[in-house]
Amino acid sequence: MKRFDIITFLSDFGWNGGYVAACEAVITRVRPLARVSNISHEVAVGDVAAGAMILARVAPLYLPAVHLAVIDPGVGMDRRPLAITADRGDVLVGPDNGLLMQAAEALGGLRDVWLLDPERVRAEAGLPPAAVSSTFHGRDVFAPAAALFSEAVDPARCGLALDPSALVRLTPPVWRISPEGATAQVVEIDRFGNVGLALPFDHFAPQADTLTVEIEGEGLPEWTARSVQTFGELRPGELGLLRDSWGQVALALNGASAAQLLSVQRGMTVRLTRPAARPYDPPSLGPKSGQG
Amino acid sequence: MKRFDIITFLSDFGWNGGYVAACEAVITRVRPLARVSNISHEVAVGDVAAGAMILARVAPLYLPAVHLAVIDPGVGMDRRPLAITADRGDVLVGPDNGLLMQAAEALGGLRDVWLLDPERVRAEAGLPPAAVSSTFHGRDVFAPAAALFSEAVDPARCGLALDPSALVRLTPPVWRISPEGATAQVVEIDRFGNVGLALPFDHFAPQADTLTVEIEGEGLPEWTARSVQTFGELRPGELGLLRDSWGQVALALNGASAAQLLSVQRGMTVRLTRPAARPYDPPSLGPKSGQG
Amino acid sequence: MKRFDIITFLSDFGWNGGYVAACEAVITRVRPLARVSNISHEVAVGDVAAGAMILARVAPLYLPAVHLAVIDPGVGMDRRPLAITADRGDVLVGPDNGLLMQAAEALGGLRDVWLLDPERVRAEAGLPPAAVSSTFHGRDVFAPAAALFSEAVDPARCGLALDPSALVRLTPPVWRISPEGATAQVVEIDRFGNVGLALPFDHFAPQADTLTVEIEGEGLPEWTARSVQTFGELRPGELGLLRDSWGQVALALNGASAAQLLSVQRGMTVRLTRPAARPYDPPSLGPKSGQG
Repeated sequence: MKRFDIITFLSDFGWNGGYVAACEAVITRVRPLARVSNISHEVAVGDVAAGAMILARVAPLYLPAVHLAVIDPGVGMDRRPLAITADRGDVLVGPDNGLLMQAAEALGGLRDVWLLDPERVRAEAGLPPAAVSSTFHGRDVFAPAAALFSEAVDPARCGLALDPSALVRLTPPVWRISPEGATAQVVEIDRFGNVGLALPFDHFAPQADTLTVEIEGEGLPEWTARSVQTFGELRPGELGLLRDSWGQVALALNGASAAQLLSVQRGMTVRLTRPAARPYDPPSLGPKSGQG
Repeated sequence: MKRFDIITFLSDFGWNGGYVAACEAVITRVRPLARVSNISHEVAVGDVAAGAMILARVAPLYLPAVHLAVIDPGVGMDRRPLAITADRGDVLVGPDNGLLMQAAEALGGLRDVWLLDPERVRAEAGLPPAAVSSTFHGRDVFAPAAALFSEAVDPARCGLALDPSALVRLTPPVWRISPEGATAQVVEIDRFGNVGLALPFDHFAPQADTLTVEIEGEGLPEWTARSVQTFGELRPGELGLLRDSWGQVALALNGASAAQLLSVQRGMTVRLTRPAARPYDPPSLGPKSGQG
Repeated sequence: MKRFDIITFLSDFGWNGGYVAACEAVITRVRPLARVSNISHEVAVGDVAAGAMILARVAPLYLPAVHLAVIDPGVGMDRRPLAITADRGDVLVGPDNGLLMQAAEALGGLRDVWLLDPERVRAEAGLPPAAVSSTFHGRDVFAPAAALFSEAVDPARCGLALDPSALVRLTPPVWRISPEGATAQVVEIDRFGNVGLALPFDHFAPQADTLTVEIEGEGLPEWTARSVQTFGELRPGELGLLRDSWGQVALALNGASAAQLLSVQRGMTVRLTRPAARPYDPPSLGPKSGQG
């Protein structure tokens, strides 16, 4: 094990009640000069899939680090507390509900997995053993574990090795490319109202100036989106389709919310259709459908 | 006096206009490598009692630190700027409106209190003396004072000793345990919609599988809450009563907002009643009513 | 060039999707122990003028620093990526859309300006050159540039010198003092509902106990505001006029939102009129109208 400069931290706690700080406080008890980098604490309450996606996008941008992630609707039940080492050298800490898996894969894949023993974590951290709540393992188990691993404590001191194949995995969002175009789930509505799809831009390669956009099952009107490179190319009110900063297809307006225009929410499915007049010549890049 | 690694910071400033950063900036003028740990800046505007509770919960989780807290509706009036040392070694800095007192007690009790002199604070900090605004003592007085104390400057250099008994104290929220059950004020609605009561769980010890829940004075329907350990035990829509992560009684739903279900807000009073069929055997643990 | 302890960071990204952290992650790739001080990431989406004002207010409170600011509706178009050195020694990094100019002037004025070359920035930072997105130059260009400059890398290594007179400047908000009173644009609604005007308090010097307040072009009722030093002097519901903590005139209520009372928004113009009965004696302090 090596020491890490940074502990990243993602949760659905919000900044309201001091819950984020409670975890940071415990981290600094174990490692007084720990540096915590907050990824987000505004993930929708209990939305493990949204948190998993954000973590998988942002964690690889750091140098190898400890990644503490707590979106934990199963806290206090039999879901397992985990530490995962990734091939790149990172350590991920959080509940076994799928939150960590996509990031672990983005960090090179899972190397080792441990089932954390709360008592051993707290003993290693020099914290009182009896103080594990039923509802806030972020503060009581995961934060001290993350602090320990950032100081090069071996996870094996805090729990037992687990078979990685036994871990909970989320069903990834679905996308499919067809001769007519593509369908894909909405995976992100950002603060600008951009609608991010689970559709890798390089696989889809619009190959058309405009596409028809429909929201599946909503009986809503169709929209036309123009392929552009960036927001500023769009006229006011004009819907655009572009490669977003994560390499996925996104729908956007210039200076307004595409999500509001389309009345679309995370999890809905969007269908993109090329103009019938133009025969489709599918690109020859890798898979034509997939998950994730 | 000793040096402190961390200055914690709580306010009702929000992150919108740069007010939090203005304070952090002044802190780093005085101590360039100061480490600020934000507890919350989203406390409801002017809600001194809410801020006091959060500070009292979170401050003890840190190693001894300087705690800067600014919820200050009386800024520029005759309310006094304070520094308080607590028995555990922490220093608290903020207005004399009750914001600091609950935390000082949670940190072992008040040791010494100083009335800060804004001019002396600014002179010690090397800041221009004439620049104290009437409306932003966070930036102009409290932040530089916190930075100084984090560097082991003796508060006695920045003001005069005060009699602790002269300080403003908030009326703590009320709770009462009766043979039939308990009444207690709502002290927290968290981001998950959990309803935190001013009722110590260990004193109440539900001793019943279900309790009736009423909101006093609201003419609302009664609800039934089931005693559980954690959220995940609850069926969809089922109201639960549990020990929250601060050791208090809370009402919760699994994956939904109990506060919304009950139409309850901070400050309202909740009555919990044990089933009449079951004769009450009060637990023999400490006080049966109290404040705080 | 010198090294800087702090990189300040302002944007309109919000904390929702990991975009702030993506930038911080890239900063720490370049400078693992970089210290990022967040000014605000809650600026209204695309509101360059609001961000420029906050940056100009807060940046001078820090010791000389690198200031990273990204509100960038023109990302991926022909707007230029900039580094600016200010007379006080600070380095500002962001898009050429006016966001940085007011702060550069508040930091002593522009010294040198560089047009950043994204490829050279990334090469200096040791990042893959092909990875510049069309939509997220915060992560791909500005954050690594800020990290480099914080480590004393000369901006001349990352781009070409530009003529400062060629930079985009925002039209500053308008204010005007007349014998009857003043008109000024609303430049800020803070979290407390205080209404900040683009009107320097020292130039206006109310010289009257009460003023009439009108919102131009809204056909709304007139209000009367009383000159006070601070919020606490106001009776419930009484509108006050005071010098805010930035030296500007603001309208405020005690414990309630003046913006809500007046139905006023940023950008609207407010007219303040002295009582007709009292002949006006204009103060002889500097300009009687201006911009900014």
